[in-house]
Amino acid sequence: MHFTLSGPRQQVVDKARWVAKECLEPRAAGYDASAGHTWESWNDLWNHGLLAISVPKDYGGLGADMLTYIMAIESLAYGCTNSTMTLHMHSIVQQVINAIATPEQKEVFYRDVVEDGRVFGSWGSEPESRGGTRAGKRTVIAPIEGGYVVNGRKHFCSMAGAAHRCMIHCAMRGYEGVDAFQLVLMPSDTPGISIEGEWNALGMRATVSPSVSFDECVVDRRCLLGEPGSVLKKGVIEGFGLGYAAVYLGAAQRALDFTVEYCKTHQFDPDPAPMSWNIVVQRNVAEMTMVLEGARQVLFKSAGLWESTNPANRAVLAARAKYSAASAALAVTSKCIQTVGGRAIRKGLPLERLYRDVRTATLMPPNSDRCMELVGKAELDVSED
Amino acid sequence: MHFTLSGPRQQVVDKARWVAKECLEPRAAGYDASAGHTWESWNDLWNHGLLAISVPKDYGGLGADMLTYIMAIESLAYGCTNSTMTLHMHSIVQQVINAIATPEQKEVFYRDVVEDGRVFGSWGSEPESRGGTRAGKRTVIAPIEGGYVVNGRKHFCSMAGAAHRCMIHCAMRGYEGVDAFQLVLMPSDTPGISIEGEWNALGMRATVSPSVSFDECVVDRRCLLGEPGSVLKKGVIEGFGLGYAAVYLGAAQRALDFTVEYCKTHQFDPDPAPMSWNIVVQRNVAEMTMVLEGARQVLFKSAGLWESTNPANRAVLAARAKYSAASAALAVTSKCIQTVGGRAIRKGLPLERLYRDVRTATLMPPNSDRCMELVGKAELDVSED
Amino acid sequence: MHFTLSGPRQQVVDKARWVAKECLEPRAAGYDASAGHTWESWNDLWNHGLLAISVPKDYGGLGADMLTYIMAIESLAYGCTNSTMTLHMHSIVQQVINAIATPEQKEVFYRDVVEDGRVFGSWGSEPESRGGTRAGKRTVIAPIEGGYVVNGRKHFCSMAGAAHRCMIHCAMRGYEGVDAFQLVLMPSDTPGISIEGEWNALGMRATVSPSVSFDECVVDRRCLLGEPGSVLKKGVIEGFGLGYAAVYLGAAQRALDFTVEYCKTHQFDPDPAPMSWNIVVQRNVAEMTMVLEGARQVLFKSAGLWESTNPANRAVLAARAKYSAASAALAVTSKCIQTVGGRAIRKGLPLERLYRDVRTATLMPPNSDRCMELVGKAELDVSED
Amino acid sequence: MHFTLSGPRQQVVDKARWVAKECLEPRAAGYDASAGHTWESWNDLWNHGLLAISVPKDYGGLGADMLTYIMAIESLAYGCTNSTMTLHMHSIVQQVINAIATPEQKEVFYRDVVEDGRVFGSWGSEPESRGGTRAGKRTVIAPIEGGYVVNGRKHFCSMAGAAHRCMIHCAMRGYEGVDAFQLVLMPSDTPGISIEGEWNALGMRATVSPSVSFDECVVDRRCLLGEPGSVLKKGVIEGFGLGYAAVYLGAAQRALDFTVEYCKTHQFDPDPAPMSWNIVVQRNVAEMTMVLEGARQVLFKSAGLWESTNPANRAVLAARAKYSAASAALAVTSKCIQTVGGRAIRKGLPLERLYRDVRTATLMPPNSDRCMELVGKAELDVSED
Repeated sequence: MHFTLSGPRQQVVDKARWVAKECLEPRAAGYDASAGHTWESWNDLWNHGLLAISVPKDYGGLGADMLTYIMAIESLAYGCTNSTMTLHMHSIVQQVINAIATPEQKEVFYRDVVEDGRVFGSWGSEPESRGGTRAGKRTVIAPIEGGYVVNGRKHFCSMAGAAHRCMIHCAMRGYEGVDAFQLVLMPSDTPGISIEGEWNALGMRATVSPSVSFDECVVDRRCLLGEPGSVLKKGVIEGFGLGYAAVYLGAAQRALDFTVEYCKTHQFDPDPAPMSWNIVVQRNVAEMTMVLEGARQVLFKSAGLWESTNPANRAVLAARAKYSAASAALAVTSKCIQTVGGRAIRKGLPLERLYRDVRTATLMPPNSDRCMELVGKAELDVSED
Repeated sequence: MHFTLSGPRQQVVDKARWVAKECLEPRAAGYDASAGHTWESWNDLWNHGLLAISVPKDYGGLGADMLTYIMAIESLAYGCTNSTMTLHMHSIVQQVINAIATPEQKEVFYRDVVEDGRVFGSWGSEPESRGGTRAGKRTVIAPIEGGYVVNGRKHFCSMAGAAHRCMIHCAMRGYEGVDAFQLVLMPSDTPGISIEGEWNALGMRATVSPSVSFDECVVDRRCLLGEPGSVLKKGVIEGFGLGYAAVYLGAAQRALDFTVEYCKTHQFDPDPAPMSWNIVVQRNVAEMTMVLEGARQVLFKSAGLWESTNPANRAVLAARAKYSAASAALAVTSKCIQTVGGRAIRKGLPLERLYRDVRTATLMPPNSDRCMELVGKAELDVSED
Repeated sequence: MHFTLSGPRQQVVDKARWVAKECLEPRAAGYDASAGHTWESWNDLWNHGLLAISVPKDYGGLGADMLTYIMAIESLAYGCTNSTMTLHMHSIVQQVINAIATPEQKEVFYRDVVEDGRVFGSWGSEPESRGGTRAGKRTVIAPIEGGYVVNGRKHFCSMAGAAHRCMIHCAMRGYEGVDAFQLVLMPSDTPGISIEGEWNALGMRATVSPSVSFDECVVDRRCLLGEPGSVLKKGVIEGFGLGYAAVYLGAAQRALDFTVEYCKTHQFDPDPAPMSWNIVVQRNVAEMTMVLEGARQVLFKSAGLWESTNPANRAVLAARAKYSAASAALAVTSKCIQTVGGRAIRKGLPLERLYRDVRTATLMPPNSDRCMELVGKAELDVSED
Repeated sequence: MHFTLSGPRQQVVDKARWVAKECLEPRAAGYDASAGHTWESWNDLWNHGLLAISVPKDYGGLGADMLTYIMAIESLAYGCTNSTMTLHMHSIVQQVINAIATPEQKEVFYRDVVEDGRVFGSWGSEPESRGGTRAGKRTVIAPIEGGYVVNGRKHFCSMAGAAHRCMIHCAMRGYEGVDAFQLVLMPSDTPGISIEGEWNALGMRATVSPSVSFDECVVDRRCLLGEPGSVLKKGVIEGFGLGYAAVYLGAAQRALDFTVEYCKTHQFDPDPAPMSWNIVVQRNVAEMTMVLEGARQVLFKSAGLWESTNPANRAVLAARAKYSAASAALAVTSKCIQTVGGRAIRKGLPLERLYRDVRTATLMPPNSDRCMELVGKAELDVSED
């Protein structure tokens, strides 16, 4: 009972499904346990072209449109939430490059990915602010002779220590508010970058997302993506939320499919029939199926309308999808555990890991409160400020 | 942020929207107050071709496919739930005729609709059974010399006293279980039919759905649609649930749009800003928007897959849509009242009427428990018996 | 599984139960249908002493403490929501009199109730404001030679046309904000009072709550209760919310008990057992039982702590109870209808009436949003302004 | 806004609060990280008399009644869920001893606790059965010459490797169904007992609950508690569910209090006020407060009625409390994480640990589905048979 895309687009999704099952899933539990970088899975994604899913075809990538991209991300997250979440962050950086980088920058950055299999991080959160704010970053970039200098501190810096380049969300000194917003794509070995503390979290443990500080980091002009404030007019970083939604739904669908299979193949005294014959199990599965399906169709609609929608309105498209997906995924992963029962909490089964990953992931910006605000204001014709 | 259909199909939906707004909505409150038949609105539907929406084009109808039909029903229910609910019942009878009537029967029954603007009822519920059961009807049809005789009693007989013909769900004497299921499309003035009691209900008051008894009603062979058990193999009466879902969503969308408009245009002391600026109002609107949107996409998907789906699986398509729509519509109409506040309960505003209509409608078979059972079993590969 | 009060207090509750069953319930459906004043039931309440439940014993009343009062109100609402809601409003006026009236006023006002069986209304809502605001009333009282004059307009004036006296919430000219808050208990036949429009609402129809305007209504000093702002320091009008909670729970318990009885005594094809054997019915009943029970214990705790709690904190006690009770009653009455099925929507059964009454009642001030704000701020030590 | 118990009973609860804060809480995170036995905390509980909370006063214990016990358990769980969960299991074993052990057995078993600070386990779950079934245990005890022999396998054997004695739920060979139910309190070093696999779970990690097998374990008559089937008539093991409810509520209250404190002391750009001023935070806190409070009052009522309730009905008292508490605790711990935001998922804060512990704990028998069945049947007068 699924829609399919037209030929070449569906091939991208089919490949993602295959990679998820054959390459990513077998390592998912191990990455969670070790909380280490997902190097091997990034390598597989590279080998199968998916590391360049958002790189244009002219530069050797898959050049996926948003709907194809989202369906691929959902399929990959079904196999491994952690490596897929980092792939998504990396891919949005590619989409930013597509939108505002100079031809010279594209040449260099795309080659890093296509030929060398490098991953790029995107570090936006700051200790003092709640997720989702574009303006007022306390990480500041300032012009100096021969280049620029960056100072500040970031939280939740996924792939820290592994990303080849990191896209830092900064404020350009001398500008105000959203006009100051400047993305800087700096090499990770830039002097002055230091990882602070360790990453020991409830879930999404292999995204390795510690805090990072920037102390007098000097970068040259070629690291700046666009002019101050320019990227916010492109409606491209709003794609973060859309991909998060796809990750949650992939994770929740994996939990649900595991639960369905478990209930078809297990029986408990004193009932001689498999759990799947139990009416309460059937109701749970029905509820979970429909909440996931509703959220998925909302996501696919937002993704399908992405390219034809005014950039100024894409934040709402993403908020619709992310809000619905986060609610669905939290509800589904918890109910899967309830349905399977006590055995579900053991590390040997995937449910407890998916439950932790989803609880962590749904906090990412824009969080559900912010999503509701965006959707509500859009429906009520209330402007943002 | 809406998808549109291709040309001629979209024209049907656009016409439905126009009729809903210009013809149906102005009478909706009056029909609720009087609890009388929606004669004038049926007449408008006839004049604009929509009474024959499910009659094939060759016979002068619109010949709408399921997705077009469902989008039209949703649009019409936005204007008037009661006349649209009866139109839907009438239309499913047409779809049954499309599927199993003889050419001679079609000639007669289609002409009733296209040329004479007659409405047809479908009466299936019985006092002793919960909705949704196909087998074991206690209303029995038995062959007699020169025809058949029908005896029994039906509940919730919408359009009783107004329908030109009524499609009675019977059991054919001499058959067992689902094999006995026989639809009989009898003239409403058949001797022996009598309306029992009055229809005084919480909502959907103008569907006029009292009990009806059949006492030795003699019908001839031309009133029987198909052979005993045959219609159940066609997957056509499962369409009832799909259309109900469309009615609920149309009603709920009307309530939500009213609420949004109200909040944009009203202010309350001591806050000088319109209600739409209130963050709690924004959150309510966002929640309602997304739950409706999720259910709508589920419905559209079920409708879009209808014709290409094996008849045996259509009950699940309908159950998915009806379950999601019923949950959404109950939640939305209640929250609309909460959002608007005390004024919402007055008869002068449409919210209290929509709230009552939805609460009534969502009980229709298959009810939400039965829908969950159908969906859950399908996901768990448990056969129905 | 119920707690009981000590002797004389339990007798009040027991009497309320008896009156609810024998006197109030038989008239409840009729009052709803006619939307007329509940004269006969007020008379029964008077005959059994309950009209004076909040009048001190020294003046011939029952002098009930808050917990006894709340348990009596819940018991009475079980029989008839409409007459009990008006009794509650009347009783809070008595409690205000207890708290701030002069001995001379008490003499007169208590005699009206105890000897003459009069009912008193309390009219606070205004067209321009959302429920729950104390300050900034637009209905103004101003001193004139030999008395005072009142001008303004009120919404939702329950018992308009029947109440002997009405307690108007006004602002005293010359004062600001909450300091201006002045209750005026004026005779209902004061020249200048006029009822505007009719009361035609979803539920609570026999509370007869139209709008009322006050045009140069002259009252003398003996109609003023306390000094401007003084009643707000007594924590007595906060009792409104507590009694509303009791009404909702009484209504919801009535719906649940009806549903339980219905399920024990009805069966549906093809299942030969009573509905009560159905596992889905059992789950519904369990959910409803526990949500009601939780809300009831919260209410009883708030009522039990009432007298010993600082008046400044009673708004929070009431908000806790009202929020929980409103949520519970809305959920329970809707699920009762779902559990009983299609027959539940007919006027012959009480469920649809209780469903309408509860949906209406839960909008009363302080509404659920305001209750959440009060509770949240109290827990977070955030002062109101 | 809390009720207190009378003198000596309140002293037990006050001591529990003190021990929770001073002794248990500082070790809670460490126990979770190491997943080791909570030896030091058991020792503190012993030193402060709480290990003997359910031992009669005549034997040197605290002899707490059920309400006192439950309030103490809630208070202790506020400090450390893991050591309190094991204390509760240990204490129910004591309550079983109180109910059915012989004077000779009591002498020995109480001394183990009071003088030697030993802990007792209770192992009932089996691999093939869902929680909550009393009958049909596959772990069998059979009489042999000079004693008995036990064979079987248990899941979720908390304190395995640490408990001095373990109470095994067995079926006595030669008896049928519930009549065969036999508790055996055997020394943990009985030959034939072996721990299988390790305990690596989502939460409640320091309860150390691996599987244990019993291979020809020989015990003498003094290890048998009561006759086959006798304990089920005492309504004592039903107390498990009541204590679980107290543990969940203690954990959830801890999460809520942490969240409230966090919101009062943290601020995020661009909002200069503390989070506690945010209306969404206030609403979240209000919702959590009321759902916890409702569940707590339900629990206290069940506990307060325990001793005066017919043993046959205590399963319903426990089911009411456990169902409400489990629902509340799951909702609250998840919403606490949402309210605090991204920082909540780090191991340094207690929220993610409480979230995991609660998700695990709520699966314990009788699970929520079983609780609903018990409550629903009781309300509907359907016997369990």
